[in-house]
Amino acid sequence: MTRPPIALVTRLDAPAERAWRDHLAAALPDEDIICFADMDSGQRAAADIAIIANPDPASLALLPNLRWCHSLWAGVERLVAELPADAPPIVRLVDPELSRVMAEAVLAWAFYLHRDMPAYARQQKARQWRQLPYRPPWEKTVGVLGLGELGVAASRVLQQAGFAVEGWSRSAKGLPGMVCHHGPDGLGALLGRCDIIVCLLPLTPQTRGLLNADLLARVKAGAGLINFGRGAVLVTDDVLAALDDGRLSHAVLDVFEVEPLPPDSPLWGHPAVTVLPHVSAPTSPHTAAAVVGANIAAYRSDGRLPPVVDRQRGY
Amino acid sequence: MTRPPIALVTRLDAPAERAWRDHLAAALPDEDIICFADMDSGQRAAADIAIIANPDPASLALLPNLRWCHSLWAGVERLVAELPADAPPIVRLVDPELSRVMAEAVLAWAFYLHRDMPAYARQQKARQWRQLPYRPPWEKTVGVLGLGELGVAASRVLQQAGFAVEGWSRSAKGLPGMVCHHGPDGLGALLGRCDIIVCLLPLTPQTRGLLNADLLARVKAGAGLINFGRGAVLVTDDVLAALDDGRLSHAVLDVFEVEPLPPDSPLWGHPAVTVLPHVSAPTSPHTAAAVVGANIAAYRSDGRLPPVVDRQRGY
Repeated sequence: MTRPPIALVTRLDAPAERAWRDHLAAALPDEDIICFADMDSGQRAAADIAIIANPDPASLALLPNLRWCHSLWAGVERLVAELPADAPPIVRLVDPELSRVMAEAVLAWAFYLHRDMPAYARQQKARQWRQLPYRPPWEKTVGVLGLGELGVAASRVLQQAGFAVEGWSRSAKGLPGMVCHHGPDGLGALLGRCDIIVCLLPLTPQTRGLLNADLLARVKAGAGLINFGRGAVLVTDDVLAALDDGRLSHAVLDVFEVEPLPPDSPLWGHPAVTVLPHVSAPTSPHTAAAVVGANIAAYRSDGRLPPVVDRQRGY
Repeated sequence: MTRPPIALVTRLDAPAERAWRDHLAAALPDEDIICFADMDSGQRAAADIAIIANPDPASLALLPNLRWCHSLWAGVERLVAELPADAPPIVRLVDPELSRVMAEAVLAWAFYLHRDMPAYARQQKARQWRQLPYRPPWEKTVGVLGLGELGVAASRVLQQAGFAVEGWSRSAKGLPGMVCHHGPDGLGALLGRCDIIVCLLPLTPQTRGLLNADLLARVKAGAGLINFGRGAVLVTDDVLAALDDGRLSHAVLDVFEVEPLPPDSPLWGHPAVTVLPHVSAPTSPHTAAAVVGANIAAYRSDGRLPPVVDRQRGY
């Protein structure tokens, strides 16, 4: 085989990395995919593509002839922060199955709030039989922050379930059948209208700490919050303060500044917080390998890449 | 007005009964709807229609010229049990909004089980960060027991969400895109295939105590159970035994033999039971009054009734 090898560079443990290698090999039977640790210096010099999952930058630096890297994850803020400015272009994972699983999670936990599951759990603990008032979904506004692939997919299933869905993104976007807000002013206006806020924003210099005390002061009283994007988009202490004074009724948090969430975090024991261990949208190795395989096969055939990460923008 | 009055006969408290009277009066502006307690003997003798919600049979017996009764509820097992065999025909509520709310509840609590919310709540209590394996919905079979209006509506939304849905009913039914089982043999076979069992059966002599130890011995190991039909369809002690030995992983129970669920019931404190206070499908007075109004208007115009309850069958 005269084709250069493909390097698999991750910080996963060895069995997890080998499992990925097997999935990728099945999707790319004509390619030679080698785990970085197993490559000799000739293979490292020859490799033109790396498939990466939070790689050690020092490892990537030992692959001098890379044309581009394909991330196995959709979130790339760590890559953008860690890799040097002259690193090869990065393609991030855009997997329709990932969007479906995320949209399902958003709908599942929107229903969790809509159908008052946290309140009924509290009542059960107190052996209290009390029916809470029911409002149909079209009387509830769900605001989706972040209108990329995941946000659009989530908005669609929320609309199908009957919710009044509005969206927010950094720059102006138009989506059929949906009010879309944008920019800093648009965010405050939207938060004042939402019964449920769904955060699917990527972590960038602009979104870090975005949901802070100032913005949380503008939410509709009693709104629920779902964060399935990135932990550091929220200021945790400000969210806790908003929960404690009742501005927010409940928060479902799947992502955190430090993961795993440290055992001494006040989030674990807060009665109005549901802590999830980053499970809203697990990557499926089957479908992710198929997407990576298709992108690499297209590159081999005509040299073209899918859209690459804009390092300035951060995603 | 020469038209005979309509009697409203309930066991609700006075404010709740008056609220229903106002909704019904708005839906039937040409009718004279009078609460039973407010009727004089002439009005009682003249009334030809009663709108009822678990009425005292002794009250109905004081309305000698009723042609038929319209129940405000979809469930009529108490009426069937309490009213004499020669009571007037009963029309039960078939409200599309009731079906929508029930289907939404079935999907919401199917997601609750599908996305492992009970297990993640236990882990949170233990401050444990652990990702459970995810299987997509098409790898999970949801069995819907009872294929009336509610069961069909629930099956449709479960299918749209991607679940493999199969149904069971007393007599054979065919529904497009769905495997339908029927009869006693069909039930055992279906239970052995279900990851999630959704019970929407009415309470009849045939369904009372149907889900007992014999049938629960046949469920797929680790299945989840949702009962939004009637409490007495389940044998509570047998369900608890199946939860304790792990055949059932979790039960979401909204209906009980005695409601409110007594404070000393072991269901309240069981770690694998979610107790809900009969909230899966609250009747909307707006839409229910509209449906009752349309049925009464049709009767006034051409004397025809919607399908009436089959007292032998029980629904």
